[in-house]
Amino acid sequence: LTIALNNELPLYQQLYAYIKSEIQAGRLGAGSKLPSKRKLSTHLNISQNTVQLAYNQLIDEGYVVPSERRGYFVHKLEHMIKLELSETTSDKTDFKEESRILYDFSYQGVDYQTFPFSAWRKLTKEVINEYDHELLELGHPQGHLGLRTSIADYLRQSRGVNCRANQLVISAGTEFLLQMLIQLLGKDENIYGIENPGYERLSLLFQSNGARFRPIAIDGNGMMPEEILKSDANILCIAPAHQFPSGGIMPVHRRIQLLNWANERPGRYIIEDDYDSEFKYSGKPIPALQGLDKSGKVIYMGSFSKPLSPAIRVSYMVLPEHLLQKYTDQLSLFLCPVPAIDQKVLERFIREGYFERHLNKMRNLYKRKREILTSEIARMDVRAQAMGADAGLHLLVTVNNGMGEEELVITALKAGVKVYPYSQYFPDVSLYQKAPVVLLGFASLTEQDITKAIGMLNQAWRATVCKDFNEV
Amino acid sequence: LTIALNNELPLYQQLYAYIKSEIQAGRLGAGSKLPSKRKLSTHLNISQNTVQLAYNQLIDEGYVVPSERRGYFVHKLEHMIKLELSETTSDKTDFKEESRILYDFSYQGVDYQTFPFSAWRKLTKEVINEYDHELLELGHPQGHLGLRTSIADYLRQSRGVNCRANQLVISAGTEFLLQMLIQLLGKDENIYGIENPGYERLSLLFQSNGARFRPIAIDGNGMMPEEILKSDANILCIAPAHQFPSGGIMPVHRRIQLLNWANERPGRYIIEDDYDSEFKYSGKPIPALQGLDKSGKVIYMGSFSKPLSPAIRVSYMVLPEHLLQKYTDQLSLFLCPVPAIDQKVLERFIREGYFERHLNKMRNLYKRKREILTSEIARMDVRAQAMGADAGLHLLVTVNNGMGEEELVITALKAGVKVYPYSQYFPDVSLYQKAPVVLLGFASLTEQDITKAIGMLNQAWRATVCKDFNEV
Repeated sequence: LTIALNNELPLYQQLYAYIKSEIQAGRLGAGSKLPSKRKLSTHLNISQNTVQLAYNQLIDEGYVVPSERRGYFVHKLEHMIKLELSETTSDKTDFKEESRILYDFSYQGVDYQTFPFSAWRKLTKEVINEYDHELLELGHPQGHLGLRTSIADYLRQSRGVNCRANQLVISAGTEFLLQMLIQLLGKDENIYGIENPGYERLSLLFQSNGARFRPIAIDGNGMMPEEILKSDANILCIAPAHQFPSGGIMPVHRRIQLLNWANERPGRYIIEDDYDSEFKYSGKPIPALQGLDKSGKVIYMGSFSKPLSPAIRVSYMVLPEHLLQKYTDQLSLFLCPVPAIDQKVLERFIREGYFERHLNKMRNLYKRKREILTSEIARMDVRAQAMGADAGLHLLVTVNNGMGEEELVITALKAGVKVYPYSQYFPDVSLYQKAPVVLLGFASLTEQDITKAIGMLNQAWRATVCKDFNEV
Repeated sequence: LTIALNNELPLYQQLYAYIKSEIQAGRLGAGSKLPSKRKLSTHLNISQNTVQLAYNQLIDEGYVVPSERRGYFVHKLEHMIKLELSETTSDKTDFKEESRILYDFSYQGVDYQTFPFSAWRKLTKEVINEYDHELLELGHPQGHLGLRTSIADYLRQSRGVNCRANQLVISAGTEFLLQMLIQLLGKDENIYGIENPGYERLSLLFQSNGARFRPIAIDGNGMMPEEILKSDANILCIAPAHQFPSGGIMPVHRRIQLLNWANERPGRYIIEDDYDSEFKYSGKPIPALQGLDKSGKVIYMGSFSKPLSPAIRVSYMVLPEHLLQKYTDQLSLFLCPVPAIDQKVLERFIREGYFERHLNKMRNLYKRKREILTSEIARMDVRAQAMGADAGLHLLVTVNNGMGEEELVITALKAGVKVYPYSQYFPDVSLYQKAPVVLLGFASLTEQDITKAIGMLNQAWRATVCKDFNEV
């Protein structure tokens, strides 16, 4: 294997692209064994982590199949010629989902069926009838004051966030807000600490923005203070309300430790991602970390993706007072990407109490789904255990049937059920200790679906080792 | 333990809040044992269940640790460090406009009054009635195929752009698209060439994204080839349909020169910003540069900000085929920021012919406004001359009354009329040769306003040198 690496692309992408092209060209035939990660990393003088990322991508796209303890093998491709032809005319960009998936435990969706669409419809008509050309005028770059006020009121009352409307910046997705923050806080002087394991898109986001980041290990209480100190990160990205994917809630003593860490030096910040904090099923929601912060060290981020729908495309951040002027000077060239009409409808949806009522309804509904999911998991023939706090829209499951993670995922997929491998959430896979753990998001499945899907997983996972898989 | 309970909140929340505040204030120290559930419930005359709920919440948040058979203990919490921050609380962030401006020749707005709002309202109601939960589902990262198809059809027919729907990426503003491009094309290996003078936000955008750029001088035909070669730019950002702010249209020979330049080396690209190309008042619109390109060297960008309204927040780019796969690999993590409903309404607005009709109407309306503006300028007592092609929504005016640029702007402002100094559009001011030139955008003013405003300018600029100004 010879490959000329350059600086144009991240190394793992070059490696991935190279291997992919070799497979597509037939030079790496079906069933060929790829070099081990260790061997290849030594040979190319790159890190094992880079090789892992490339191999993961090839696995994700189905070019390569991992076989536990035996290595990585080229998958048999039947339609190579067609694939190559359709490459330029690519309908590949149309993101086809794998076929034959009957139940998808993705954590991306929400329960769309219970959305109060008639109320939304009513408010949309109201807004479009009442307003006229005002809806076409350029709004405030941070978003309409009315919507910011509604959100600020909600955050103060329900999330314990200290904020005024003028601290809010409304945008169309957490990734846009993070991009703004990367620019606002500066690229060269900062190193971002991200949870390991954590939200899998963060490392890609920082990478593609040319920002430095370090994966930082977590324990059951969140990011570990000694690991933070060992890294040279000065801005932490955390989800204290419900860590993703572990599902842990950060207790107050760890929160105080992190705030103290931030207060020890200027330039240290904590970005609190409160992505699904609305959903805590026993007791009250845990107040935001931002509410404990008296020094303007926490940048709070929230979104309507989980409580309403990702298609609403509204997220927001609360900037500490001392960053506002810098924001105005540097970033107010970014107009608020949310159209005026949608801002007005959402403002009314919150102000007239629909949002609160919807949240209460969804909390009960998701609580029931979670209960059904955990009790179905407990009833499985294979020894399986659900992990994570009684909160959020996903959980981790450890399955003790002798299968490894990949076998669990593949056998599930063959049975028509998509579950997600725990390892993919590790930006630094060296911290991933091989464990038979998968992630299940349950928000978009019905109660019946959950029961059926777990039944199918039970069947699929009952055989201690999948025959088909061993034949690969 | 004394606690006054009221009816405003659930009892357990009052109890929880009380104990939490006692712990935070240090009155319940680390290691203190809380009263047993039975004791406290008797003491307060509330149910044990209520106490249990309060204790559970304290445990969830980490204030209290349960110890089996021994009871409930206050967790040890670090002392909170507070950082002293210089309070720069500012309401400066509220973007106050200068007072006393009667007429603003800003080029940012459009004529909102003639927007076919009843049609937009009708389509919005149609969409919200016809669709249901589909509007809440996550769409394609490049935008809905229906809208992309409508836009692609329009671009092929009206702008001569060679494209298919799958090459389009829809976003919420040109700045978002440029950010994506900066990431897609790579930061370290590229140098962007921007027009000098040019759109004043471009340099800020590249700067804040950490991308290298060079201001490149223009002549009446656009960027000068010899200046491009002198710079080491390999990606040019140009507006060939109507250069901003000079108002020139790039002739075909210059277009071919630039395309030849791009074709000479791999990695060279042209980003064509077609921001107001819909508005050409004499003759046929000039087809897009992209239509001449046979090698995938042009990235075409357009927006609905000028033809409809900046509040619509929809812009798009057409990627060359060979960049699509790279886009999919790297950037499809960015969900399309335009909400589903707005995409559907706009799709219908285009497909059902409203957009084309609106454009025709606006073309006539803006043509008249421009005629009034240029004839009013010609009639001024001071020697003033309008420059720029018969296109677009702004023009430059040279005023030969002995005042410099700043004096022109300040005397106008004192008279209640806002005009824009030419010099601010030079990313490299060393190329700015002192000239009494100001920019006037005319889209958002009525015909009467234009006449009145120019009358006021005539008054203000008549005195060869403003007395007040000399006293400053």
